[in-house]
Amino acid sequence: MKILVINCGSSSLKYQLIDMENEKNLASGLVERIGIEGSVLTQKVEGREKYIVKTPMQDHKDAIKIVLNVLVDKENGVIADMSEISAVGHRVVHGGEKYSKSVLIDDEVMAALEEVAKLAPLHNPPNIIGINACRELMPNTPMSVVFDTAFHQTLPEEAYLYALPYELYTNYGIRKYGFHGTSHKYVSGVAAEMMHKDIKDLKIITCHLGNGASITAVDGGKSVDTSMGFTPLAGIVMGTRCGDIDPAIIPFVMKEMNLSIEEVNNLMNKKSGVLGVSGVSSDFRDIEDAAWKEGNKRAQLALDIFNYRVRQTVGSYVAAMDGVDCIVFTAGLGENSPETREAVCSKLSYLGIKLDLEKNKSRGKALEISTPESKVKVFVVPTNEELMIARDTMNLIK
Amino acid sequence: MKILVINCGSSSLKYQLIDMENEKNLASGLVERIGIEGSVLTQKVEGREKYIVKTPMQDHKDAIKIVLNVLVDKENGVIADMSEISAVGHRVVHGGEKYSKSVLIDDEVMAALEEVAKLAPLHNPPNIIGINACRELMPNTPMSVVFDTAFHQTLPEEAYLYALPYELYTNYGIRKYGFHGTSHKYVSGVAAEMMHKDIKDLKIITCHLGNGASITAVDGGKSVDTSMGFTPLAGIVMGTRCGDIDPAIIPFVMKEMNLSIEEVNNLMNKKSGVLGVSGVSSDFRDIEDAAWKEGNKRAQLALDIFNYRVRQTVGSYVAAMDGVDCIVFTAGLGENSPETREAVCSKLSYLGIKLDLEKNKSRGKALEISTPESKVKVFVVPTNEELMIARDTMNLIK
Repeated sequence: MKILVINCGSSSLKYQLIDMENEKNLASGLVERIGIEGSVLTQKVEGREKYIVKTPMQDHKDAIKIVLNVLVDKENGVIADMSEISAVGHRVVHGGEKYSKSVLIDDEVMAALEEVAKLAPLHNPPNIIGINACRELMPNTPMSVVFDTAFHQTLPEEAYLYALPYELYTNYGIRKYGFHGTSHKYVSGVAAEMMHKDIKDLKIITCHLGNGASITAVDGGKSVDTSMGFTPLAGIVMGTRCGDIDPAIIPFVMKEMNLSIEEVNNLMNKKSGVLGVSGVSSDFRDIEDAAWKEGNKRAQLALDIFNYRVRQTVGSYVAAMDGVDCIVFTAGLGENSPETREAVCSKLSYLGIKLDLEKNKSRGKALEISTPESKVKVFVVPTNEELMIARDTMNLIK
Repeated sequence: MKILVINCGSSSLKYQLIDMENEKNLASGLVERIGIEGSVLTQKVEGREKYIVKTPMQDHKDAIKIVLNVLVDKENGVIADMSEISAVGHRVVHGGEKYSKSVLIDDEVMAALEEVAKLAPLHNPPNIIGINACRELMPNTPMSVVFDTAFHQTLPEEAYLYALPYELYTNYGIRKYGFHGTSHKYVSGVAAEMMHKDIKDLKIITCHLGNGASITAVDGGKSVDTSMGFTPLAGIVMGTRCGDIDPAIIPFVMKEMNLSIEEVNNLMNKKSGVLGVSGVSSDFRDIEDAAWKEGNKRAQLALDIFNYRVRQTVGSYVAAMDGVDCIVFTAGLGENSPETREAVCSKLSYLGIKLDLEKNKSRGKALEISTPESKVKVFVVPTNEELMIARDTMNLIK
């Protein structure tokens, strides 16, 4: 069984075709500049050169048509016929409170997605457009949606409710939803396997550290708290997002700097984070270079702030679960920055954590990086949201 | 030597006259409704009935005149003559980045206070009015200011800087300042004495839990992190304040509910916290009654949220200091709610904390409430900001 996984942005689309017999990635690709001049598709297949298609794509339907053409292309494709695609799994950012699991798509689900779009105005609308385009082109192929929020629907009330007037929750749906759920679920599951233990018996903290970053407390396999909130702005510091700040700063800067609602949103989402502090870049590699090769102090400060907030959040989740068995690092920075992992773990010695500094040098591979004596195990686990979406989709159509 | 301590609000004034020979509180009082019809002064002296004076007071100068009259009153006073007051110590909320210690008042200090008033528009202006009135009435008495922010000026850069564009710090002074500093300093010092240890060798977490609430990490006697931020809105949940929330909620509610900057500030500062969640009251005693006697679920939820945020913040500060030797509870709720202390500590068993549930029943007294085996000591220490202000003032005039 082959499953196509699709993740639509406003002008981009990522896809992956996975063979579920062996969970092998047959082809993955990225379509950029949809609806903009210069539309381009880039497909990667293991063992082959990148395949690039430049052709006008007016909308997501055009883009998906090209994706399907490329997948069945005689020379550059990986399947003979579209009928080989047994199902399509769509990543959707926000499932609101309605969805705590992945679901097969029908008209009712589509209506619910429209309803919840207000909560994720930047993310859900392009997800919906992508699904509609796919349904038109593949009307007989079963499709599922896998939500970034679903895994966090197990949060207890005291973790998801803000101390705002209660009506803000009942009337406007303002609560913590959390994101990156597919990733946190996947890596916590892999870590439990690596420990040869039932996840039901484990307290795990998963650190998804990339340009977007979030940390989750997974108790017995269930998300019990997570650092992103009502939106993906909350929590720890990110590439361009400020994470949690004193909320009084927002009205203050709106007044002092004469900013509109849109401008202050833009400031917090696009101009803050390690970019805002360092003034260098939102990319951690650039900042590490500036800090370590050029001695840029603000770049070092940006890294220090980031590491400190990660460490504090890990500490707060140990308190949330009253203990921790294992800490997992994943996503761009989590998988590839030994320095970040060391900075976070070196001051968690009160938990009995000991990193194996030699093993910690590893990048991008699933590995235990704590010493055998370490009371808390530390793992690097490369995330694989696409595989998780494909697995959920397969289970739904079975 | 007798020192008068004054704490001015916008329409109120608290005072205390302290005999520094034995640090005894000679008289304490509260003036309410300054500049409003029905001005009233209430003075308490140990062993006497409350003394109440109802007389019009148009401004803070009027109020301070009455305070001084009452203190020297033949029948109800406690001193024979104003000249017995060796010095006056004023509590000032915000010292900005300029003051990391208490200072004697001169014109330069007054100018600096005016400068920093923008950062604390609700608090500093009445403080300044009170000081000016006092200086007019007692021109030859030395006076000091003791700042709520001063103790936190030792925060490292990675703790006080927000991940916002760096210019917001340099141009507008947006950073974490922290508050309740006098209280955190006082109770951490008392706890070190109770442990018979030099505070330089201790990692202490102080929980000032009242209607306003903040938690501080005190490492070696220095504040290294604190939960309030740029303003006293930040950090944990409070009586009417929301504490930290996803900052994206603010522009969202401004748009959805059509709120102005002032209205959203008011919502977060006055209508949120345990009041907002419970819908019952901002007073924890009312909420405890509603939850435990009436079975009000939202009241219980408000308490659960409060306790959970306190526990998480304690956990994050253990991570900040890489360990903790002692946890201190102070202020209204911290001193008087065994239930809060138990709820916070019972799920910190991973730190080796064990409460002595019998001792924990105590209210309002300085006491060790952990068992002898507890790896982390837990104390209740009644705060005494007035005494701390008087001590600082005495040291300055010596």
